Amino acid sequence: MSNPALEDPTYRTGVIELLGLLAAGEIGAWMRLAEDAAMAPDLRTTTEIGAMATSEFGHFAQLRDHLVALGEDPYARMEPFRSTFDAFHVKTRPSDWLEGLVKAFVFDGLAADFYREIAAFLDAETRELVLDTMSGTGSSEFVVDAVRGAIEADPRVGGRLALWGRRLMGEALSQAQMVVAERDDLSALLVGGVDSPGMDLAAIGRMFTRLTEAHAERMAKLGLAS
Amino acid sequence: MSNPALEDPTYRTGVIELLGLLAAGEIGAWMRLAEDAAMAPDLRTTTEIGAMATSEFGHFAQLRDHLVALGEDPYARMEPFRSTFDAFHVKTRPSDWLEGLVKAFVFDGLAADFYREIAAFLDAETRELVLDTMSGTGSSEFVVDAVRGAIEADPRVGGRLALWGRRLMGEALSQAQMVVAERDDLSALLVGGVDSPGMDLAAIGRMFTRLTEAHAERMAKLGLAS
Repeated sequence: MSNPALEDPTYRTGVIELLGLLAAGEIGAWMRLAEDAAMAPDLRTTTEIGAMATSEFGHFAQLRDHLVALGEDPYARMEPFRSTFDAFHVKTRPSDWLEGLVKAFVFDGLAADFYREIAAFLDAETRELVLDTMSGTGSSEFVVDAVRGAIEADPRVGGRLALWGRRLMGEALSQAQMVVAERDDLSALLVGGVDSPGMDLAAIGRMFTRLTEAHAERMAKLGLAS
Repeated sequence: MSNPALEDPTYRTGVIELLGLLAAGEIGAWMRLAEDAAMAPDLRTTTEIGAMATSEFGHFAQLRDHLVALGEDPYARMEPFRSTFDAFHVKTRPSDWLEGLVKAFVFDGLAADFYREIAAFLDAETRELVLDTMSGTGSSEFVVDAVRGAIEADPRVGGRLALWGRRLMGEALSQAQMVVAERDDLSALLVGGVDSPGMDLAAIGRMFTRLTEAHAERMAKLGLAS
């Protein structure tokens, strides 16, 4: 595969790190959703969660294949981000299937938003891959119905899940900050390098505002305060 | 969907039970493979197991969609077989990822053989679905390499995994017998009904011989005695 944009070694490193990050995130999401499926109260819920998990695995496979096509060892490129996602999942282990559903819904949405934001700073070929990969898991209607149904059956559930949503977002932002702090070439994709445009601090602030607003809208869709 | 063969109510019940059985088996395999993936020693193995799991989920989705197209509630049709597969998986819980790989390999092959055997007694449309669903998970080369590599590194592993393979086959046959004993319409698919041809006891015996022989060949491929 030849992509002239990747001839800039700093940019290439950033892209490879980004793909490794996304692939590690997708496989982590796959494993955790599969775990959550085991907590589901019935077969239908198990399989709806399974469909979300399977969709994440498909995303992972696309990213891995792209890394292979670029001549990279995908597993070596994912490895540095494994501990980030492990730490994130340990801190946000759902205590029941409803928390699992909210987590899947919140992060699927957040990931899609983040993919879209970062796509603006990528070359055409990488952008196409990233946008293609981010396509939703398609199970959001099921999640909305299940969460709203549970709140209707017991309104206290709404308060608990709203708190849970805030915790999820807080953990995600804190892990994201650590990745940005540790990975210069990856961060350079966002903030720009010598020859490439990027966001200044004000623009990064606006991006976080957009992500947070979209999160609040998703929580509202579930009937939850954010 | 109109399938004239299904106008015979006994045959229809048998087919619906068969599809429920297969769908429950596929979703059970999916969940257990996802669990096994968490035991993998590295990311590559995790994702190879993940690919097998994802393929099982795809099979499940095909069977479920077919049940829906026949006007059935797929989850209600799967429910009676849940305890069978749960019992099977509890009795064959792998103690490490290698046992998980052998289990996946053995049952994927056994399931494919069984699908092929039973396909001979189905109407054209149902047969096509069943044969289509059974398409392998495509990761067998990885399993063969991994198991043979582990035995090379420590020959004692071969003895342990050979025992494991025998136990798996024994449990599978014992669960299969219980299903046949409990489900008359499903069994009628194999042994035939008033108007439909089927196997006599001798033919069923020969089928079990074929399944056992194919199992032995698969074990040999892994470098294991059966």
